[in-house]
Amino acid sequence: MAITVVGSVAFDSIETPAGRRDRCLGGAATYFSLAASQFTKVRVIAVVGEDFGANEQSVFDARGIDTQGIERASGKSFFWEGSYLENLNEAKTHATELNVFGAFQPKIPAAYADSEFLFLANIDPVLQKRVREAMPQAKLVAGDTMNYWITGHRDALTQVLKGLDILLINDTETRMLAGNPNLVKAARGVLDMGPRMLVVKHGEYGATAFFGKTKDGFGAKTFRAPALPLEEVVDPTGAGDSFAGGFFGYLASQKELTPAVFRRAMFYGSVMGSFAVERFGTERLQQLTRAELDERFEMFRELTHLD
Amino acid sequence: MAITVVGSVAFDSIETPAGRRDRCLGGAATYFSLAASQFTKVRVIAVVGEDFGANEQSVFDARGIDTQGIERASGKSFFWEGSYLENLNEAKTHATELNVFGAFQPKIPAAYADSEFLFLANIDPVLQKRVREAMPQAKLVAGDTMNYWITGHRDALTQVLKGLDILLINDTETRMLAGNPNLVKAARGVLDMGPRMLVVKHGEYGATAFFGKTKDGFGAKTFRAPALPLEEVVDPTGAGDSFAGGFFGYLASQKELTPAVFRRAMFYGSVMGSFAVERFGTERLQQLTRAELDERFEMFRELTHLD
Repeated sequence: MAITVVGSVAFDSIETPAGRRDRCLGGAATYFSLAASQFTKVRVIAVVGEDFGANEQSVFDARGIDTQGIERASGKSFFWEGSYLENLNEAKTHATELNVFGAFQPKIPAAYADSEFLFLANIDPVLQKRVREAMPQAKLVAGDTMNYWITGHRDALTQVLKGLDILLINDTETRMLAGNPNLVKAARGVLDMGPRMLVVKHGEYGATAFFGKTKDGFGAKTFRAPALPLEEVVDPTGAGDSFAGGFFGYLASQKELTPAVFRRAMFYGSVMGSFAVERFGTERLQQLTRAELDERFEMFRELTHLD
Repeated sequence: MAITVVGSVAFDSIETPAGRRDRCLGGAATYFSLAASQFTKVRVIAVVGEDFGANEQSVFDARGIDTQGIERASGKSFFWEGSYLENLNEAKTHATELNVFGAFQPKIPAAYADSEFLFLANIDPVLQKRVREAMPQAKLVAGDTMNYWITGHRDALTQVLKGLDILLINDTETRMLAGNPNLVKAARGVLDMGPRMLVVKHGEYGATAFFGKTKDGFGAKTFRAPALPLEEVVDPTGAGDSFAGGFFGYLASQKELTPAVFRRAMFYGSVMGSFAVERFGTERLQQLTRAELDERFEMFRELTHLD
């Protein structure tokens, strides 16, 4: 089933211990789309500037991603510059230029109207809510957010959470959102705000899925997916968005959302995150084949399976 | 098969967000013994002072632990005071009094001589080496160490590592020991120093087993065991030593060390760590039943198993 994703398509300048890339294609919606496109049809809603050219467009086209919803505006695309020189787990931001993204008003193409899966990447919760309301046909809605919206835009975020089936955030964001230092209690607090499932991403330690108390697949037991111990992390940028794309893409490709399907989706999320960090920007996800993906899924299985 | 463990038996004063305990029984050898005694016969080598009385002795006796090797010396036992008020993952030490432990010269009772399993808990590597050499019959030797010995007593530690089959340390210690910030490369560096297996403990995120390249059970693939997401961590003291006790105790109870046995041992280590932190000091391990242990093992299986 098709996924519509709304979020940023951007240019990133990144420095890590492995080297530097200037103005490579990035943005949450880009990583998400590339990862999810391994499993299902993906449609993007975003805004880019005049610097988004044929090379960037071809990255989406090569994976069959529908870009009708990427608006071309006058000016420059969203730009981020950051480094991970001291700590590969945490980016140091040097510059953020919103550019055309600052006035982003998501426009939903008519052809996207039958999308049953909707992913609200990390953008202003006011826009997340507007897109969710404009796509009432969406049967399963997942989303992401960050510190900035949790601390400064809590009312708008609270509205979004009420309409979400699945929220994907990290440990710190979970504790901050619920105001509780214990992860399990914080997770329960977040589930009480609306989502039926919370995926807490632990970076190099994997991710944990917490569920509400319904009797369907969303009533599953807490599940922990590992991350792959990697010999070289070239660039951590986009790992979380790639996780979300692998996770939600797999869900959208399944007929039924059972506990087993959620567990496999967590593994596919971790698999995608592990590929994303192997090269700069989206380089690895652009080249990824389904055979490589299946092979790594089996590596993850071996990494945690007892029997 | 019997395990001999050498390490500290001590008194701890602990403060956590859950409360405070003064001078409760602690020490690495204590936590290790209580955990390992669920699986096999355990013999302890340690030194205590006159403050170690009938109450403390009864904790060992109740679990059938052999304490012939606990020497009674004039003076006070090793004492540690610490708190976990800001961060449950890291103790803040307020006082360390070595007392009789400062002059500890391990004496090995004749009755321990047939121990096939030997655990060298976190003490001066000079003493670890001496005990290892005095017990040549030991077929499988595991050990622990810490920052203090890695940075200030590297030569002695290097000698110990050459005689170890299995080393259990945390992420920071692994990176420090190998001088490499990447965990996988650091793990390989540590394996090159002697141990055939390295267990890296990640605290609330579980533990990873790395193996050398031999063709027996020690040539197994990297394995990651989760930690249980806990609603309440009352006192993290001794979690790592309890992990080691569960892990090594299970190994000692098995006929053959296959890759599958190592994986289950990692789970039993995590299971013991999860119990240890539920109450202050050794309170939970003292009360633990085999049925509770088996039930929690199944919870861990459900937490990570795909199918």
